[in-house]
Amino acid sequence: MKQQLTIIKVGGKIVEEEETLQQLLKDFTAIPGAKVLIHGGGRSATKIAAQLGIESQMVNGRRITDAEMLKVVTMVYGGLVNKTIVSRLQAEGINALGLTGTDMDIIRSHKRPVKDVDYGFVGDVDAVNGALLSDLIQKGIVPVIAPLTHDGKGNILNTNADTIAGETAKALAKYFDVTLFYCFEKKGVLQDADDDNSVIPYINEEAFKQYVEEGVIVGGMIPKLENAFNAIHAGVNKVVITLASAIDGKSGTIIEK
Amino acid sequence: MKQQLTIIKVGGKIVEEEETLQQLLKDFTAIPGAKVLIHGGGRSATKIAAQLGIESQMVNGRRITDAEMLKVVTMVYGGLVNKTIVSRLQAEGINALGLTGTDMDIIRSHKRPVKDVDYGFVGDVDAVNGALLSDLIQKGIVPVIAPLTHDGKGNILNTNADTIAGETAKALAKYFDVTLFYCFEKKGVLQDADDDNSVIPYINEEAFKQYVEEGVIVGGMIPKLENAFNAIHAGVNKVVITLASAIDGKSGTIIEK
Repeated sequence: MKQQLTIIKVGGKIVEEEETLQQLLKDFTAIPGAKVLIHGGGRSATKIAAQLGIESQMVNGRRITDAEMLKVVTMVYGGLVNKTIVSRLQAEGINALGLTGTDMDIIRSHKRPVKDVDYGFVGDVDAVNGALLSDLIQKGIVPVIAPLTHDGKGNILNTNADTIAGETAKALAKYFDVTLFYCFEKKGVLQDADDDNSVIPYINEEAFKQYVEEGVIVGGMIPKLENAFNAIHAGVNKVVITLASAIDGKSGTIIEK
Repeated sequence: MKQQLTIIKVGGKIVEEEETLQQLLKDFTAIPGAKVLIHGGGRSATKIAAQLGIESQMVNGRRITDAEMLKVVTMVYGGLVNKTIVSRLQAEGINALGLTGTDMDIIRSHKRPVKDVDYGFVGDVDAVNGALLSDLIQKGIVPVIAPLTHDGKGNILNTNADTIAGETAKALAKYFDVTLFYCFEKKGVLQDADDDNSVIPYINEEAFKQYVEEGVIVGGMIPKLENAFNAIHAGVNKVVITLASAIDGKSGTIIEK
């Protein structure tokens, strides 16, 4: 039997505000066994970019990353947000290691080709070095991954944290019995968008298709769930979509085969 | 016989300008065997702080680091400068890993006590985890270390890169035959400050004392050399003070017992 591994993806909002960060650190520390944290940082990037006189341009919820914005996200995601989390986890006795995809070549990507939109220095993931990450995790190290990858040609690329979480979970499924948590601002996938308590407890692929047909699951939740099923098909044991404060696995929407 | 290890400390200026960075990457890549890079980033920090409306205050060449400045150096040293170097080294086929002292608890420090000057969030190094660094290096990984440490209580501390280099060299001397290069803007320690070619090729402790007595070695070079002898006494094989473009070890001032 493979060892359990919990991978938590949290959005920027949670790690950027002291109160929610404190709660996350407490909850994350309480997770037994091997674990990985993947974080965003978009709000801080937007704020610091604005202070530097750089305007944030978003298309379909994704950041347009020109050369100047790339410097900002490299500073904010790889430096400020990542190292703040790592130092705080160290204080909790967690042997955290902050990483971007370029460190030890753990996540290789390519610059997204320009179709309708030129996203700039944005990466689509090609490969996650699961063997190396597994090796670190086996040693008791807890990787804390910022949403930055590289192309192997000297370029850092801004990369969606949900995608990094999914790809990392898939790469580690060979070595561990992986549960992946996508944390967001709701308790889970909702049956009724207006009722925060109408969480759908389990979704399999068949139910997902039906929910989409019925218009119950719409918008940004569709790619999130497609990502989840994609991870499940690649060997990830379980995906949970829930609040960051519910990473004890006792609530949220569980996605299984 | 222990394996050779080369530790290179370069100042901010070298890694912040494209031309000198390119040369450094080329020279660093050419160093055979195990290696570690330790970098500064002060100029970029000053520039970005200014753009954010934060004034840089220096006392005796050291940066006063209040809470806002700590955010800047965490972003710039740990994010922008560190990850830029790492991604560029990866493109050269070097398996670089960007680290700050908080990552895997590799460099523990304490906040400098306030005496005449309150330097703020500045760390004095207590311990470098040589065993862990050695383990990574043995695996072919090249640590690239930013001048940030932590106190184990959740605080990142701004830390002098020369000190980090010296302490890292000392901690690794147990595992390797260490040569430490302090790179700066001169060819070496000069006999005559006005003659850039008057490099003193070798200095031992006795000669050092004499040079100081005679007023040949003055100012900031005195603590640099004291650091060097300190490293030598702790088992470091050789310290070289030279230009970043001379890390082939064929020029500069060599400090030995």
